[in-house]
Amino acid sequence: MRTLLVVGIGAGDPDQLTLQAVRALARTDVFFVLDKGPAAADLTALRREILDRHLGEGGYRLVAAPDPPRDRAPSEDRSTAGRAAYATAVDDWHARRAELYERMVLDELDDEGTGAFLVWGDPSLYDSTLRILERVAARGRVAFEHQVIPGISSVQSLAASHRLVLNGIGTPVTITTGRRLAESGFPPDVDDLVVMLDGDTAFTALAATDAGADLDIYWGAYLGTDDELLIHGRLPDVAGTITRTRADARRRKGWIMDIYLLRRTPRTPTRDGDRP
Amino acid sequence: MRTLLVVGIGAGDPDQLTLQAVRALARTDVFFVLDKGPAAADLTALRREILDRHLGEGGYRLVAAPDPPRDRAPSEDRSTAGRAAYATAVDDWHARRAELYERMVLDELDDEGTGAFLVWGDPSLYDSTLRILERVAARGRVAFEHQVIPGISSVQSLAASHRLVLNGIGTPVTITTGRRLAESGFPPDVDDLVVMLDGDTAFTALAATDAGADLDIYWGAYLGTDDELLIHGRLPDVAGTITRTRADARRRKGWIMDIYLLRRTPRTPTRDGDRP
Repeated sequence: MRTLLVVGIGAGDPDQLTLQAVRALARTDVFFVLDKGPAAADLTALRREILDRHLGEGGYRLVAAPDPPRDRAPSEDRSTAGRAAYATAVDDWHARRAELYERMVLDELDDEGTGAFLVWGDPSLYDSTLRILERVAARGRVAFEHQVIPGISSVQSLAASHRLVLNGIGTPVTITTGRRLAESGFPPDVDDLVVMLDGDTAFTALAATDAGADLDIYWGAYLGTDDELLIHGRLPDVAGTITRTRADARRRKGWIMDIYLLRRTPRTPTRDGDRP
Repeated sequence: MRTLLVVGIGAGDPDQLTLQAVRALARTDVFFVLDKGPAAADLTALRREILDRHLGEGGYRLVAAPDPPRDRAPSEDRSTAGRAAYATAVDDWHARRAELYERMVLDELDDEGTGAFLVWGDPSLYDSTLRILERVAARGRVAFEHQVIPGISSVQSLAASHRLVLNGIGTPVTITTGRRLAESGFPPDVDDLVVMLDGDTAFTALAATDAGADLDIYWGAYLGTDDELLIHGRLPDVAGTITRTRADARRRKGWIMDIYLLRRTPRTPTRDGDRP
């Protein structure tokens, strides 16, 4: 039976690799890589840097394939029909990826071999690899067992760079997407909200609202790399700076990966109980 | 100026240490350890195993101190007054810890030295070390700079062992505490809820409610160690098994650390649109 490893490799700093991940690389026969879009070249280079370092240049076999195209248009539409169209588009894309994974594994990996998918961040957060492997299993054409090696996520990298504890004392933390924030606003019963995958800077619109006036933002991009950018402050004060910094960086590098925490600003009660 | 490193060392498997953490250990002059309670001996031994492995036996200096006692009684009281008493108890405990950290750093670390606090899991989730260092800084008696090295959290370890993606497609994940779950129930607008620090098995009461009937649970204890326990299923079906397994394990080892995901059971619509 084939073994497939889904290995979290951290959020950008090659030193965020765990010892468990290093051992997983060492027992892998074939690495499968799918990247696309403007970040693809840089991300593939960073993966190669990790593999070169731990397995030696030429000391591994890497199979790269172009990621199936994904229909991104529906993500602009926030209506109920738009959400349904988005779910269908994601589903179609997962189906095409499952076919591609199946073919790669059948064509490139021996019956007893070990293949690995290297996942940025952690495989358990907003990553499709595990869902797609479940689809491959359900198609029934290739038998495999799979294991997951956790990795440092961008959520943790953001917290570390800002030296933050994400939760309040005994209170929850919610992790969500930019799309969801744009659709539903800042959740009323949440104090600490981590926002991932916000290509449309949903925090900008929020900054102009009543809810936004009471929020702090801790933003980071290219976390753990030499290009790391960090900005924090009251959301209405720094939203413009973040938007400009983000646009400049994206133009310069050709891509950006960023993440942020929105936190209700703690209000210090004055002695007579009023808020300052 | 002194440097203090707050190093996440993973959720129990020594191989979850990152390369960045290994490098942090190598540049540390003094390791500060505070443990207490029934797990203290095992956890200290596990830390020593990590240090022995990377720095050699006797190749490091470790300063251990007993953790200040914490008044845990208020945590049983779920009223508004009870919540205030809980916050005060935590605040008092942090204040005592800050005094202790300050004394340890002043007494044991040279002016130019590097000290490290080794934190289970990740320093950004339900860990007090960073809050306490902020207090030490605010007291103004010892100048230091501090850095955070992220670690694999038990949240990720749980997801990896169950091979789970924590979020639904485009939907949020909330991380909370057992205390909060017992107080507020399963949040109505949440599909995926990770519960930490649930010494009172709040899921048991939830299993008997209407909300609990629609939940799946993915539970894990001693994650990443030889004693790892994993159970999953419909919450009403497996809550009793988990409670018994948990009590047995706790009796056997003298302590337990566990965590779980509660997930709304996906309902597959039938062809005529009804739910089965």
